[in-house]
Amino acid sequence: MARAWHLKSRPDGMPTTGNFELKTFDLPKLEEGSLKVTNRWLSVDPYMRGRMNDVKSYVPPFALDAPMDGGAIGEVIESKAEGFAKGDLVLHMGGWRDEAVVTAKTALKLPDLGGADPQQFLGILGVTGATAYFGLLDVAGAKEGDTVFVSAAAGAVGSAVVQIAKAKGMKVIGSAGGKAKSDYVRSLGADAVVDYRAGPIVRGLAQAVKEVASEGIDVYFDNVGGDHLDAAFALARLNARFAICGMIEGYNKAEPSSFRFIMRIIAMRIRMQGFIVFDYQSRMEEFYAAMGAMLKSGEVKAQETVADGLEAMPDAFLGLFKGSNTGKMLVRL
Amino acid sequence: MARAWHLKSRPDGMPTTGNFELKTFDLPKLEEGSLKVTNRWLSVDPYMRGRMNDVKSYVPPFALDAPMDGGAIGEVIESKAEGFAKGDLVLHMGGWRDEAVVTAKTALKLPDLGGADPQQFLGILGVTGATAYFGLLDVAGAKEGDTVFVSAAAGAVGSAVVQIAKAKGMKVIGSAGGKAKSDYVRSLGADAVVDYRAGPIVRGLAQAVKEVASEGIDVYFDNVGGDHLDAAFALARLNARFAICGMIEGYNKAEPSSFRFIMRIIAMRIRMQGFIVFDYQSRMEEFYAAMGAMLKSGEVKAQETVADGLEAMPDAFLGLFKGSNTGKMLVRL
Repeated sequence: MARAWHLKSRPDGMPTTGNFELKTFDLPKLEEGSLKVTNRWLSVDPYMRGRMNDVKSYVPPFALDAPMDGGAIGEVIESKAEGFAKGDLVLHMGGWRDEAVVTAKTALKLPDLGGADPQQFLGILGVTGATAYFGLLDVAGAKEGDTVFVSAAAGAVGSAVVQIAKAKGMKVIGSAGGKAKSDYVRSLGADAVVDYRAGPIVRGLAQAVKEVASEGIDVYFDNVGGDHLDAAFALARLNARFAICGMIEGYNKAEPSSFRFIMRIIAMRIRMQGFIVFDYQSRMEEFYAAMGAMLKSGEVKAQETVADGLEAMPDAFLGLFKGSNTGKMLVRL
Repeated sequence: MARAWHLKSRPDGMPTTGNFELKTFDLPKLEEGSLKVTNRWLSVDPYMRGRMNDVKSYVPPFALDAPMDGGAIGEVIESKAEGFAKGDLVLHMGGWRDEAVVTAKTALKLPDLGGADPQQFLGILGVTGATAYFGLLDVAGAKEGDTVFVSAAAGAVGSAVVQIAKAKGMKVIGSAGGKAKSDYVRSLGADAVVDYRAGPIVRGLAQAVKEVASEGIDVYFDNVGGDHLDAAFALARLNARFAICGMIEGYNKAEPSSFRFIMRIIAMRIRMQGFIVFDYQSRMEEFYAAMGAMLKSGEVKAQETVADGLEAMPDAFLGLFKGSNTGKMLVRL
């Protein structure tokens, strides 16, 4: 019998392990055009928190008492679809479980990128890396010489943004929580780091801007929202561009976010743009080529935090909101 | 002796008449290249509140105990500049006073737009109208068929936005405070009006969206910020564009603004762009032609609230924050 995590109840605020239940379930019959896979790697991502609310968004909410889903890398154990054979490794959306039946058209056979680890397609070579790549270069239009501020810079997306920005000749300021993560962000090449646990972010960011000898930030890559976003308003230069990727600070709270410096959007002609990486699906080939090259050259390194076993999945997910991960958070089966 | 309003002290929060003092001052000697003008019309604008703080912004702060300035229409009484003669009407920045000496290169001889009233160059044919025109059509990129939400729609800029949007075939929802202003906004052609004194704006806007049979707003033209902006986040459709022109709600308060729905910027891929009309100075000819035509056809009507006499100036200015004006607020000398 296959096993999957089910959403037992919808969390109110911060989720707890009590919201989840690991249960056996019957795999659907393998129809023509489908694959049966056994999962090797499962992804936990902040956006999944939104799916736990009963609210329509860009991804449908999780149903209660049904197997949850999400990004996963699995090995094909039975194929009824052309182009897929037993033993193939595939990226698919049947995560949060050990085995899955998926339609072939929603599965991607992993491209050969010269020895990349398969789990990298859930991270630096997957949605995570593509979010960083398109958000920084396309949504924010960041260019060589720009001063870029990245929040949650030790996280999966943030650490990719830092490295891409450095590879492209930008000045980078990253924020992180605590000394270990701040050191990690600096090791990625960031020119300055703001430790958001050490004091008000706006003061730390002002100091960091001075350190990198900049007049302010040209680009803000937002993973956090709240005080981070407010600090970015405060330190933005004329014609700054903000790519709004996530606002993890607000995912588990009901209170509104407060902004003291939002009015600077006018005087500084700030452009803010929200985005979702799925909008860039047609440009994934470009991304694989570019990110593959940066990995090969060593300009970008994949960093992962790995938890072992299906049982560990809820804790791995909850860890995203406690800052437990450095780089991409994964569950290995 | 010429008389001018001086800033006596910097306001803390909402300004009072005590912050201003009407004093005589010596006009500078008329140098080569300059004009002496006697003012006919003076402009009061919300952006002037920002100049009363001792903070560098896109316009320098007012100095204490010195003649204030701002937009004005005056008649040339003496000219030492080529191209300007006694009797010419000019638009210039020597406002808040009855007489001024200005350099010719900072003065604009009023173009002949077929019988437009001179004071219209401080309003619908001036910075006010240009703000509405470029903000709506260029910054927000509003197009025929879009549903446009305009805050402070009975105000100088807002009422121009409503009329331009209707002239271009858009659905328009305007917000206004109280019944008289709401009726005025409807008389301008708005398809629905939200009276922000009648209840929470987000509820009113949701109702208005239903009334105009729209799935949400495509464009938000922001003059107010705060709850209005939050309501726009809540009701935005996919790929909505927000032109951020002003946030008058926050000009006189120290507390930060709170947003409950700002996270929708991500799911809806909202683009927010702050702007200042001065960035469009090179395109004013285009504006005069387009707005002149809309005035002539009757698609746009100039609405003014007029106060009389230099003494009335501080009260006219303070009225902007109390909603005393319908359309452009002016002082006639």
